[in-house]
Amino acid sequence: MSGGSVVALSGGIGGAKLALGLSRVLPPEELLIVANTGDDFEHLGLSISPDLDTLMYTLAGLANAELGWGRRDETWAFMDTLAAIGGDTWFRLGDRDLAVHVERTRRLAAGEPLSAITAELCTRLGVRPRVVPMSDDPVRTRLRTEEGWLDFQHYFVRLQCRPVVQEIAFAGAATARPQPALLHALGAEGLRAVIICPSNPFISIEPILAVPGLRPALAACRAPVIAVSPIVGGRAVKGPTAKMMAELGLAPSAAAVAARYRDLLDGYVIDHDDAAAAGDLGLPVTVTATVMTTLAEREALARAVLGAADALGGDAGA
Amino acid sequence: MSGGSVVALSGGIGGAKLALGLSRVLPPEELLIVANTGDDFEHLGLSISPDLDTLMYTLAGLANAELGWGRRDETWAFMDTLAAIGGDTWFRLGDRDLAVHVERTRRLAAGEPLSAITAELCTRLGVRPRVVPMSDDPVRTRLRTEEGWLDFQHYFVRLQCRPVVQEIAFAGAATARPQPALLHALGAEGLRAVIICPSNPFISIEPILAVPGLRPALAACRAPVIAVSPIVGGRAVKGPTAKMMAELGLAPSAAAVAARYRDLLDGYVIDHDDAAAAGDLGLPVTVTATVMTTLAEREALARAVLGAADALGGDAGA
Repeated sequence: MSGGSVVALSGGIGGAKLALGLSRVLPPEELLIVANTGDDFEHLGLSISPDLDTLMYTLAGLANAELGWGRRDETWAFMDTLAAIGGDTWFRLGDRDLAVHVERTRRLAAGEPLSAITAELCTRLGVRPRVVPMSDDPVRTRLRTEEGWLDFQHYFVRLQCRPVVQEIAFAGAATARPQPALLHALGAEGLRAVIICPSNPFISIEPILAVPGLRPALAACRAPVIAVSPIVGGRAVKGPTAKMMAELGLAPSAAAVAARYRDLLDGYVIDHDDAAAAGDLGLPVTVTATVMTTLAEREALARAVLGAADALGGDAGA
Repeated sequence: MSGGSVVALSGGIGGAKLALGLSRVLPPEELLIVANTGDDFEHLGLSISPDLDTLMYTLAGLANAELGWGRRDETWAFMDTLAAIGGDTWFRLGDRDLAVHVERTRRLAAGEPLSAITAELCTRLGVRPRVVPMSDDPVRTRLRTEEGWLDFQHYFVRLQCRPVVQEIAFAGAATARPQPALLHALGAEGLRAVIICPSNPFISIEPILAVPGLRPALAACRAPVIAVSPIVGGRAVKGPTAKMMAELGLAPSAAAVAARYRDLLDGYVIDHDDAAAAGDLGLPVTVTATVMTTLAEREALARAVLGAADALGGDAGA
């Protein structure tokens, strides 16, 4: 089977790479990308949505490859001046990036939903597939650490993931309403596959799954649900996934990530490096190259994941 | 008499030039500069104080001489991007300037008074004389025009002063509390002079005078109150003063400006060009060069105004 719509659940960098690959092998109207907004926060009076922006910039070809966040061709006059006048500079905002935050903040304050603002930003930046936040209601990932409860960006950026994580919570998730476009796509006849991108399970995918109604909708959907492991060779390609797993008492392995989604998955995609160690995961496994350095590798992984889904066929999750 | 403190009431560009001159001929602890905040507004979710910033940048040597507003060595990446994503661009905010607005907005939202925020910004930018807003409470200049009531910056920047002005109001003035440092300075023994800078009377000085208690305090203060005419040769050096006077049924003359402050003034400073036309203003007039293109001209006018005040001596207003 091919054709039909594909839903991709994604966090920031790693997820965005696969989302970009998918966007290059699928017609834009067949791809719905769902972003984690648990990383969102308010800083300097601005509403900042890091994963949405990483997806948007990556899909628009505007991502800053050197930094791994923000925009390319960025300038820092705002930040330099903020430092000079004694402002908070631990979260760096480029001059161009700032325009997105200021405009989003203004429109949120005017009562527009995050999904509508995101849709217009994407249109303006030339992003063709639809990108939606998991919910228009605020969900905020918080981490209990040896230093107490920390807001996500304080843990992630200000403290550079140094504190040992003991517990993770998604404030606001219990009352957040799932994005209607996502629920609709999951229930639609033409659904081809749901792809859980190679993002950190704890802080990128599980905030999405914490939105009421999304786990049941994923479990019930008729198309295959396939995850791509963010662990390659026992290590995270990027970010604190492996460190966090160890701190939470889990082996940093592709198998342990699969276990987080076990009730949802119809297939799993792992790297060649992890094939020997994965053992019997109790579900169909596709072994391929999952490290996506080049654009060609992103497209190849996208094709491999779609191929795996199509091989499983529909009604896999029923 | 020399020594003692000098209070300068100022709007933006013209006033800031004289304030800079004063700052170069007076020790910083002898100068208190009071800024009009009737021009302040909220835009893109940011609290913007144009006259405070023009004063601050001018006194810090950071003003953009070409533009006449904002900072020198400015960049526009934020604004260019805002335009690309469909944001409002009629009020241009440079990347460096933006840092001041974001930081001020954040601190106002946290409950800090505008005067405290201004003091710290001035310290950080190396401004030595004290600069205070006329009030920490919001006052907003509004103009009734042929197009209805307009907020000041919409009239001034967006519509470039084109609408015919019929009436001017200062929203919030009736309940605004005067800046304590200003009241204190006006009542202090050591007051040497009060200088009304060559700013637009209607939209720069009268918003200050509209704050309850300030007109009586100026009328009662023991030091000379001296205004510098913003009209030179029957025209405004900069801005819409002359156009506005004509629309309000006043002759665009130095004499007509003096009449706006008649109850307060002990002396008036006009340009050579206006000496013949001024006639008998009924108060001591100093004739000098008032156009301040160079720094030397700013210092010279500052000295001339202080000299005129000292010649009048104390208790002039009693």
